[in-house]
Amino acid sequence: MVAKPSPPGEFELIERLVKSLRTTRRTILGPGDDCAILAPPKRPQLFTIDSMVEGVHFCLEWGSAEKLGAKALAVNLSDIAAMGGKPTACVINLAIREGLDARFFDRLYTGIRNVAERYDTEVVGGNVTRADRLAITVALLGEASRGVTRRDLARVGDDIFVTGTVGDSSAGLAILECKLSARGPARKFLIERHLNPTPRIEAGLALAKIRPTPAAIDISDGLLQDLGHILERSHVGAEIDATAIPVSPAYRAAMGDDLTLALGGGEDYELLFCAPPRSSERALTQALGVPVHRIGRIIKGRRTLLRGANGAMVPKLRGWDQLRARA
Amino acid sequence: MVAKPSPPGEFELIERLVKSLRTTRRTILGPGDDCAILAPPKRPQLFTIDSMVEGVHFCLEWGSAEKLGAKALAVNLSDIAAMGGKPTACVINLAIREGLDARFFDRLYTGIRNVAERYDTEVVGGNVTRADRLAITVALLGEASRGVTRRDLARVGDDIFVTGTVGDSSAGLAILECKLSARGPARKFLIERHLNPTPRIEAGLALAKIRPTPAAIDISDGLLQDLGHILERSHVGAEIDATAIPVSPAYRAAMGDDLTLALGGGEDYELLFCAPPRSSERALTQALGVPVHRIGRIIKGRRTLLRGANGAMVPKLRGWDQLRARA
Repeated sequence: MVAKPSPPGEFELIERLVKSLRTTRRTILGPGDDCAILAPPKRPQLFTIDSMVEGVHFCLEWGSAEKLGAKALAVNLSDIAAMGGKPTACVINLAIREGLDARFFDRLYTGIRNVAERYDTEVVGGNVTRADRLAITVALLGEASRGVTRRDLARVGDDIFVTGTVGDSSAGLAILECKLSARGPARKFLIERHLNPTPRIEAGLALAKIRPTPAAIDISDGLLQDLGHILERSHVGAEIDATAIPVSPAYRAAMGDDLTLALGGGEDYELLFCAPPRSSERALTQALGVPVHRIGRIIKGRRTLLRGANGAMVPKLRGWDQLRARA
Repeated sequence: MVAKPSPPGEFELIERLVKSLRTTRRTILGPGDDCAILAPPKRPQLFTIDSMVEGVHFCLEWGSAEKLGAKALAVNLSDIAAMGGKPTACVINLAIREGLDARFFDRLYTGIRNVAERYDTEVVGGNVTRADRLAITVALLGEASRGVTRRDLARVGDDIFVTGTVGDSSAGLAILECKLSARGPARKFLIERHLNPTPRIEAGLALAKIRPTPAAIDISDGLLQDLGHILERSHVGAEIDATAIPVSPAYRAAMGDDLTLALGGGEDYELLFCAPPRSSERALTQALGVPVHRIGRIIKGRRTLLRGANGAMVPKLRGWDQLRARA
């Protein structure tokens, strides 16, 4: 009597998709066994996990499945970037729900694969479970550089810098949620910044070469909140010049002079870092391959002083906490 | 003006719990930064991810939060056991919902910590997200042994063995779901086998020393279905003797001669493996430190022949697929 292999279904389908993902030199055995087998790395490893949950971090109506897949991996890559490392391999847990078809998962995986290939990361395994909401959880390994841009490395006197522009992603989110209006290219730009963030891997690798090694973090919860993590771990304070916060023309078009989202909005995935005061914006911009702006400096104590446009201080600005943001 | 640190809340609470978990020699930097930093391993690494979702894999009414935490890690450890490896470090993603208090998470983490300590595994990082259902996703790293007990190593002529007894866990689940009745110690034993599985780490390590290296898998989806994975990857068939399937007295008390759950029920987390025919049950039992029974042999072709108690064949027994099991 023949015990037939399991009939095709969602489970088999996803397994096949996972198996279709590329693996290369670092992978001894990819998906299809109880574990993947990876060649031993020569350098210390970075290890992180992050999750995107439908209705909490995204709505399917906002964009394509491809962009969703891309972002699910990108937000993890950003954690590797924040430590100045090089991503190597990941495993993915997919919680799936009714109502999503094979084509949807195909596109989701295309998005993941594209980002994986762009950043030389291998998808070596996966697991699929049923749930009420779609959720994509990625656990990612990376290779540490000789310098690791940890949060606890900020020194009094360091200047504070940020890559790119901030607030775009949360402005884009506000537009998607009909809480903010913007038109034309500004609208498109802000939404794209939310749906399709760029992990600053190359910038992080360049940062990790600077000596003394800078403190760094990626801006996932909001500039001030993430700065707070550096301050807490480094036992220092900061003085931030609100007028120096880099915002995009699109942000300016939608938000005017209001810096609430630039200071408190999450998911920019830019790098915030602290480097010796001799570092110039220009030299850093060239070294990191992305515009870098000086936004303040590290001071003694534990306070964050925020100097506003009029020399006034902006009270009670808090970072973005995803547990409360869309409660 | 002082930007205060985030007020205490679920997020902070869980972060603190994660930080309370132990890390030791292999960990250069534990939780609290964008990534954990691990010392480079000397041997190839095993990498796996698994998830337990409320309402799909468990109900909180069934048992303590401590057992839930323990099982969430144990099912991952079982994947490392199936490859004959030694677990090293994990990161945990927790999807949390309303209605669970600090004490619940405290107990959950106690369960995780106890299993982590028992199997010398470090919890090096975590992430918390809001969701509708509680879900615990663990990504686990392990160190491969010189022999890796992969699924694709079964050879024609190998005998097929299984550790411990099978069907207990799904019988326990059926009792919890009021689909099966059992009394006294049998009831308690079966439920305990479901809620508190033992990852066969030591048995897996012993298996990995056998030459030629056996094919192995852990029984998570059901004996026949998991055997099917070995057959598929090894391009062989199998003949299983239903009368040789090891079931516990408790299973026998609840299920009588019905082998449905022993052959098709999931979550036993026993090891199913294929070793040269000269291996005796007794020698294997001694080497693996757990009772081992021979249940069949690997044959040419792609079929699974299941010989029943009367020499008859049992038709259409399929493994357990968690995507369909509780649809």
